[in-house]
Amino acid sequence: MEQILHPDTVALDESGHAIVIIDQTLLPASLTLISLKTREEFFDAIATLKVRGAPAIGVTAAMAYYLMAWRHVADCPGIPFSELSSRLEEDRAYLAKSRPTAVNLFWALDRMKQVLQHCSPFSGSEILERLRSECFAIRDEDIRVCRAIGEHGLALLHPGDGVLTHCNAGRLATVRYGTALAPVYLAEERGFSLKVYSDETRPLLQGARLTCTELSASGVDVTLLCDGMSGSLMRSGAVQIIFVGADRIAANGDVVNKIGTSVLACAAKRYGIPFYVCAPTSTIDMDCPTGSEIPIEQRAPEEVTSLWYEKRMAPEGIGVYNPAFDITDSDLITGVITENGILRPPFAEGLAKLFVEKRKQ
Amino acid sequence: MEQILHPDTVALDESGHAIVIIDQTLLPASLTLISLKTREEFFDAIATLKVRGAPAIGVTAAMAYYLMAWRHVADCPGIPFSELSSRLEEDRAYLAKSRPTAVNLFWALDRMKQVLQHCSPFSGSEILERLRSECFAIRDEDIRVCRAIGEHGLALLHPGDGVLTHCNAGRLATVRYGTALAPVYLAEERGFSLKVYSDETRPLLQGARLTCTELSASGVDVTLLCDGMSGSLMRSGAVQIIFVGADRIAANGDVVNKIGTSVLACAAKRYGIPFYVCAPTSTIDMDCPTGSEIPIEQRAPEEVTSLWYEKRMAPEGIGVYNPAFDITDSDLITGVITENGILRPPFAEGLAKLFVEKRKQ
Repeated sequence: MEQILHPDTVALDESGHAIVIIDQTLLPASLTLISLKTREEFFDAIATLKVRGAPAIGVTAAMAYYLMAWRHVADCPGIPFSELSSRLEEDRAYLAKSRPTAVNLFWALDRMKQVLQHCSPFSGSEILERLRSECFAIRDEDIRVCRAIGEHGLALLHPGDGVLTHCNAGRLATVRYGTALAPVYLAEERGFSLKVYSDETRPLLQGARLTCTELSASGVDVTLLCDGMSGSLMRSGAVQIIFVGADRIAANGDVVNKIGTSVLACAAKRYGIPFYVCAPTSTIDMDCPTGSEIPIEQRAPEEVTSLWYEKRMAPEGIGVYNPAFDITDSDLITGVITENGILRPPFAEGLAKLFVEKRKQ
Repeated sequence: MEQILHPDTVALDESGHAIVIIDQTLLPASLTLISLKTREEFFDAIATLKVRGAPAIGVTAAMAYYLMAWRHVADCPGIPFSELSSRLEEDRAYLAKSRPTAVNLFWALDRMKQVLQHCSPFSGSEILERLRSECFAIRDEDIRVCRAIGEHGLALLHPGDGVLTHCNAGRLATVRYGTALAPVYLAEERGFSLKVYSDETRPLLQGARLTCTELSASGVDVTLLCDGMSGSLMRSGAVQIIFVGADRIAANGDVVNKIGTSVLACAAKRYGIPFYVCAPTSTIDMDCPTGSEIPIEQRAPEEVTSLWYEKRMAPEGIGVYNPAFDITDSDLITGVITENGILRPPFAEGLAKLFVEKRKQ
């Protein structure tokens, strides 16, 4: 597992002509690095969740775009710009179908396409150089944003603190650091010796499979618990702070995140434990006035009744409630940590201000 | 699964010489009725959780005591009382080792032993008749207590209500009705058409495996959810009332119950949903001033990391937090429903009064 410590979650290999990722579907049983070279391999890795987490998917797609361009130029060194452009457009459309809802996927592919559109006067090698720079810029921005979230969150931590988290908003969901786990990694670099508690996060077990794996591989003291055990843990006094990620943040500060987050927030309020949401500003959706306007996806019943098990664990013919996300009301949230700092209530004001400033940039 | 509707969870078969139980370790994959005749079979059924739930274990042990007596008399019709008494004492000691912590097991065996001690003047068939009556009395008391809890809880329900429960405090844990599920069964008898929601109850999945099975087999509309989904469900307005069982109730009204109960209570408080604990008065422990004095058992890490799964679902070398129970503070509880009625805050007063009245009986 030591290998997980060093490479970025998504990177180009030494040749510069393949993407190297950890196959996350094999965790925690096996840490397997796989190399992606063809557009079919890029598609498959995203579609089958070998790489997941919106930021990590975005970086993978950007690098894939560059490598598809490299392939066309390598196969046909004097390829005319119009021909290259046309082939890449087909590639882009193909890859965009790998997952339907990951906004970062489309955003990253579009950003690469925009760079290409300004490349008509250039040679093949110059075009490749520009595309390569752009995918690295996207990667570097992700690293910078996560690190900034980590620095802001770090200010809330003390050596020996117990930190509770939910699902995986760690380095496996980004290139480095993660969002909710970024403060933890920066604290560990400073020798804080935190005690991190990870909800297993049913039904898909991202906490057990991914968060425990990446923290343990980095030498962080991590303890796994079932989701319902968080109240007992908080009551025991073991938890000083909670960090979770976010899938979307409404204009009033309501947070949509992995199912199980809201019940954690209720217990945190009860036991007086600060509850922080860590997310890039790109997660804020000013078009949604409150969390209730954000649609919540209901997923397949089999994820609850059968997945991971050797046999079905509930009788046939019953109903199953399996929403992928839940809404945490803003008044349960102590603060929202973005790359720009820590927002505190009233969130509506703070988020609006942040958004106006961001538009000006 | 229809068979589950009619027989008691624990019963003597038609011959009167065997105990019939559902093998709960095989649920939900298979509904298998098994017949227990020898003391080794009685021991095994309790030790390996084929029958579980403190009330159901107590009734099984009482019936086992009667059948062990029957066997001795059948084998040796003129057996002297002293010889019968000595053999049954050995049987009792053997069966008492089947589970270490189930108080009802020892209580039921001791009650049968006390009846035997007053039987020295009687013939073999008269002794058997008295022991048979006593084990049926224990069974009938369990049924009466659960039904009374159900009647009191029923007064809180309305047709069409959404009812949330946790773990299994149903008929599979008692002879009939259950404790937390008794109001549900009585309401269904009256055609209330409730919508019951069952937490899966990690790590041992008693909600998914047992509660969903028994409710579904009884024609109750039941929907399964993962433990962390309860906050989302409550926020949606689907839940009008929560019923849970109890393993022990402290003198101040703090409740120890299956892990996951306290986080449910925190969310219920947040969303304004009444939270009721259903338990016989025998569950009240006036020797424990608060919940914090009740020791909480930590169970094996493998229950969280490996049980039910085809392979280990978390990396090696991490910590695991796996308490079997948690403490719900009394101020999170709307009421405690016993066979004597519904207690409401302040619980310390009400519980003390109930206990004094019980001693007088």
